[in-house]
Amino acid sequence: MAFGNNPKYTGVIPPVVTPRASDGSIDVASLHRVVEHLISGGVSGLFILGSSGEVPYLSNAEREQVAREIVAVNAGRVPVLAGASEQTTVRTIEEGAKLIALGADALVVTTPFYAMSNAAEIETHFREIKNALGVDLFAYDVPVRTHHKLPLDVAVRLAKDAVIAGVKDSSGDDVSFRQLLLATKDIEGFSVFTGHEVVVDGALLGGAHGVVPGLGNVDPAGYRRLFDLALAGDWAKAAAEQDRLASLFNIVYTPDSSRVSGGAAGLGAFKTALVELGVISSNAMSLPMEALNENEACAIRAILEDAGLQTRVAS
Amino acid sequence: MAFGNNPKYTGVIPPVVTPRASDGSIDVASLHRVVEHLISGGVSGLFILGSSGEVPYLSNAEREQVAREIVAVNAGRVPVLAGASEQTTVRTIEEGAKLIALGADALVVTTPFYAMSNAAEIETHFREIKNALGVDLFAYDVPVRTHHKLPLDVAVRLAKDAVIAGVKDSSGDDVSFRQLLLATKDIEGFSVFTGHEVVVDGALLGGAHGVVPGLGNVDPAGYRRLFDLALAGDWAKAAAEQDRLASLFNIVYTPDSSRVSGGAAGLGAFKTALVELGVISSNAMSLPMEALNENEACAIRAILEDAGLQTRVAS
Amino acid sequence: MAFGNNPKYTGVIPPVVTPRASDGSIDVASLHRVVEHLISGGVSGLFILGSSGEVPYLSNAEREQVAREIVAVNAGRVPVLAGASEQTTVRTIEEGAKLIALGADALVVTTPFYAMSNAAEIETHFREIKNALGVDLFAYDVPVRTHHKLPLDVAVRLAKDAVIAGVKDSSGDDVSFRQLLLATKDIEGFSVFTGHEVVVDGALLGGAHGVVPGLGNVDPAGYRRLFDLALAGDWAKAAAEQDRLASLFNIVYTPDSSRVSGGAAGLGAFKTALVELGVISSNAMSLPMEALNENEACAIRAILEDAGLQTRVAS
Amino acid sequence: MAFGNNPKYTGVIPPVVTPRASDGSIDVASLHRVVEHLISGGVSGLFILGSSGEVPYLSNAEREQVAREIVAVNAGRVPVLAGASEQTTVRTIEEGAKLIALGADALVVTTPFYAMSNAAEIETHFREIKNALGVDLFAYDVPVRTHHKLPLDVAVRLAKDAVIAGVKDSSGDDVSFRQLLLATKDIEGFSVFTGHEVVVDGALLGGAHGVVPGLGNVDPAGYRRLFDLALAGDWAKAAAEQDRLASLFNIVYTPDSSRVSGGAAGLGAFKTALVELGVISSNAMSLPMEALNENEACAIRAILEDAGLQTRVAS
Repeated sequence: MAFGNNPKYTGVIPPVVTPRASDGSIDVASLHRVVEHLISGGVSGLFILGSSGEVPYLSNAEREQVAREIVAVNAGRVPVLAGASEQTTVRTIEEGAKLIALGADALVVTTPFYAMSNAAEIETHFREIKNALGVDLFAYDVPVRTHHKLPLDVAVRLAKDAVIAGVKDSSGDDVSFRQLLLATKDIEGFSVFTGHEVVVDGALLGGAHGVVPGLGNVDPAGYRRLFDLALAGDWAKAAAEQDRLASLFNIVYTPDSSRVSGGAAGLGAFKTALVELGVISSNAMSLPMEALNENEACAIRAILEDAGLQTRVAS
Repeated sequence: MAFGNNPKYTGVIPPVVTPRASDGSIDVASLHRVVEHLISGGVSGLFILGSSGEVPYLSNAEREQVAREIVAVNAGRVPVLAGASEQTTVRTIEEGAKLIALGADALVVTTPFYAMSNAAEIETHFREIKNALGVDLFAYDVPVRTHHKLPLDVAVRLAKDAVIAGVKDSSGDDVSFRQLLLATKDIEGFSVFTGHEVVVDGALLGGAHGVVPGLGNVDPAGYRRLFDLALAGDWAKAAAEQDRLASLFNIVYTPDSSRVSGGAAGLGAFKTALVELGVISSNAMSLPMEALNENEACAIRAILEDAGLQTRVAS
Repeated sequence: MAFGNNPKYTGVIPPVVTPRASDGSIDVASLHRVVEHLISGGVSGLFILGSSGEVPYLSNAEREQVAREIVAVNAGRVPVLAGASEQTTVRTIEEGAKLIALGADALVVTTPFYAMSNAAEIETHFREIKNALGVDLFAYDVPVRTHHKLPLDVAVRLAKDAVIAGVKDSSGDDVSFRQLLLATKDIEGFSVFTGHEVVVDGALLGGAHGVVPGLGNVDPAGYRRLFDLALAGDWAKAAAEQDRLASLFNIVYTPDSSRVSGGAAGLGAFKTALVELGVISSNAMSLPMEALNENEACAIRAILEDAGLQTRVAS
Repeated sequence: MAFGNNPKYTGVIPPVVTPRASDGSIDVASLHRVVEHLISGGVSGLFILGSSGEVPYLSNAEREQVAREIVAVNAGRVPVLAGASEQTTVRTIEEGAKLIALGADALVVTTPFYAMSNAAEIETHFREIKNALGVDLFAYDVPVRTHHKLPLDVAVRLAKDAVIAGVKDSSGDDVSFRQLLLATKDIEGFSVFTGHEVVVDGALLGGAHGVVPGLGNVDPAGYRRLFDLALAGDWAKAAAEQDRLASLFNIVYTPDSSRVSGGAAGLGAFKTALVELGVISSNAMSLPMEALNENEACAIRAILEDAGLQTRVAS
């Protein structure tokens, strides 16, 4: 696999989780350890203040604290992409300006939400943000949260006009994803990342430049191996590594769905796994989400061990 | 019609639009005129910073400016209910505290959005906000924006426990609305408002205590008449007034849907009508929405006149 | 309330349930008793082979058997409207022709389903069926099943061109319903019926001509009273009767939702109530639906008695 | 790539289109030519009476005619899988029995539609059909039509119990698809096919056993090459072939979406392409769908030629 268009961003850029102490405050020491865990696992960037970072649940002060701490501990080792997650254009520009001032290298921006937009408004949204801020923008396509799919033709136009430097696709629409890859593959420097943890091998085979895996918090080295195998054209081994990671992904299905929300299940599983791996101190969640319980932690421990990861108990 | 449960809030509480000047700034003079137009039309409260107030499109400074101006010009004549529209609990509490400090009498709060919540989280959300702020809360049920229906059993529990003082229902689910009315009709002081402009007669017949009509910006006196007729038990005349208002509501269908988004069509029509009525100076919209054009304004003018409202041209 | 346009169909036209014996066959004796129960309750028509009649679950032979039996026992006392429920145009025409041959007076036709249609195809669908069959057609708007809303402008055009004689609205969109009423109120002979059991008073206040209530199987006389009170302009009593029926409607929420599907809950509750009222012999359901159990029957019995209906046990 | 579990079905099994003459009748000669075109292209089976075969638009007599003709012209060269597309269990059993009697080797069955089912009913549906008919069943997961996703755990249980011989996945949910592959990979003889034309390389890399491509009507040999390259482990060439086919797939986006429905666009493009390739005589569509026009045919011709296919004009 060779990327013909010299993409600026490639590889594994996980969305960094935001650890909380049991008193509800941001657990800075654990956050530092997460960053070290990721960088030592071989990631090529950090996506902070994403959905997996619980950004919709953080106060403004907490968002700033998280950005400041991660930028400081990263100390320029890898690029920091920050989620500017606000409802519409002006609010996103304000949020983005703050994050750049705090040291973010690029911004990750969704379509408007809560608003009832059309394609033209979505296109204007990204153009105005780029005009106002200048920095690299990733369009974050996550209709399960924003309830708008980034239209393919809009994405391609924004890419051709260098309004966006890349797309992070969590749309669940693999057909549209392949078409985006085809339509943008000759755009110099442009990057397309998948956000879906269990289909990365196929995405890379189709020409994707990288992955933003929530599960990458738990096993960054596994995703790095998968990426390297794909880059080397060793697809059979890449698929086997993907299968191992897909089995590991089953941690997100351990929570009792009659108690734990869809949002809390995935994030809670990542945090609980990181506790079990000794990286963070608590699996506490932001209000109004509930943390996973000991039964669920036990099931997660078993899956981690099956996937070959060393848990505290096993060590 | 008699309200058996002494509801604290009744009548017509329109969601106040936010006029902008053609340079994009908040048009304070027009905003003042909107408030006078509404109060002289007989409204019993002002719902500020709602969807019709373009709240998702306002910067933080603009939100504060709007709240400060409306509170000042209202000068205590009617209660001011303010939309605290943020993604989750902690952010809503922060936003709500600011609005109360600025003089809001009550808060209007949606279910979490962008988040992927369940019923338990939604219930916790409202309870934590009430605990933190103490003021009257209206639960604003608007799944077309939040993509979560406020569950009926959660709403009833929150009402019984006096966590919420009322519900503003824009769910489009009239079956659930009637069941909410039935289940809460004996809760002392509790209020149920519909947000749907064209079915107010039926809602009041079923026991609703009032209406939050976006169209009430255009014709507050019409909604007041409708409410008074219903209160007097003159249902045939109430239905006739509703039919007149339902015809007036057709202004929201005048915009060209290939150009104007769903969000911009309704708000743009209300603003354009207010320009035609001489209440505000410009129908400028917040980024990234487009304003209605002269063709659309012309169609709106005709509908206003058919509904018996006096436009600038006609005067 | 006076209907200005001489509607051909008015009043209460319940969708007749299809009783099965415990061996799974159609229980003809029970079916006859249901028809007598409805006609003696004052209904003005019978809607057979609708969703409440389990039509998607009946074999072709069973559909014919049900039509033949109901037509025979009705013996011309009230009009029989039959659901021609097939995926697209040609199949609906075939089905409809069979039902007319069996004695149906009119057909009730949905938008295409399983297909992925647009507005133009939906309009062609109804026009071709009318051309082929000639009989009175009711457009049945039930997007929860077909996943297409009958577009308002299409419905109005079909009404004006006398392609359809009426609409049965189960869309759950009360705003669109009021607009349909307004747009068609002067079309000679045209009828608009609501399919929502708990908002009939408001629908009639807005100008609807009748109701197709699944719950009308259980309490046809109640719906007839509600209709007559509305016709007489006694809206306060109509609303009180509606409230009683809305409480009775709670039978559909008694089934355990972890076991019983959405489809089976409503139909199962109607059948179970009819068993409790002594009208039918078994609450057996069509494959693959499960019948309600004794716990659920017990809860239903209590609700029936609260609503003033006389159950077998109580008698 | 080696299939460890001896799947009974592998390779390319396209859903055969149903040509109509311009008078609307089934064009039998064209249908025969489609079958020869497919078999000479190297397909390993024929899926008849699927969505791409316009099955929801065919009368009962037409369904039988299509089945009879295809079975006859195929003459046992490849297995014939027939879509038994009915709303619920009993109707599907009746339809399936007819198709088996006509010579189908296996049945392709969706979840119930028009009905409002739950997971338990979906499971019962497949079990009862298998019990009644005995033949190989493919579960066809197509929520865009049925509006029910086949639940992963239900699919796995049905596979383990040999109720189903395979799954045809058109769910658009590639995450769930990978999980299904992982969960069933050791089930002797079981097959998982993707229905998505543009992501076949990734699906095969993840362990899928074949593809049911609508676009395979147009270029069966291309899909066969893609499958063979994947089987040989030549993934780079497989991806290149997939990219060519993904470009070819753009024919489905040529129709004017303001005129042509979502359903008609894809099927109309396949038919129009087959006319251009000289395989069938007319691109006529079933009622109420509209055929593509000459402008659209021209655009399709250009795409066919870009993809290296020889059109009538070019020859």
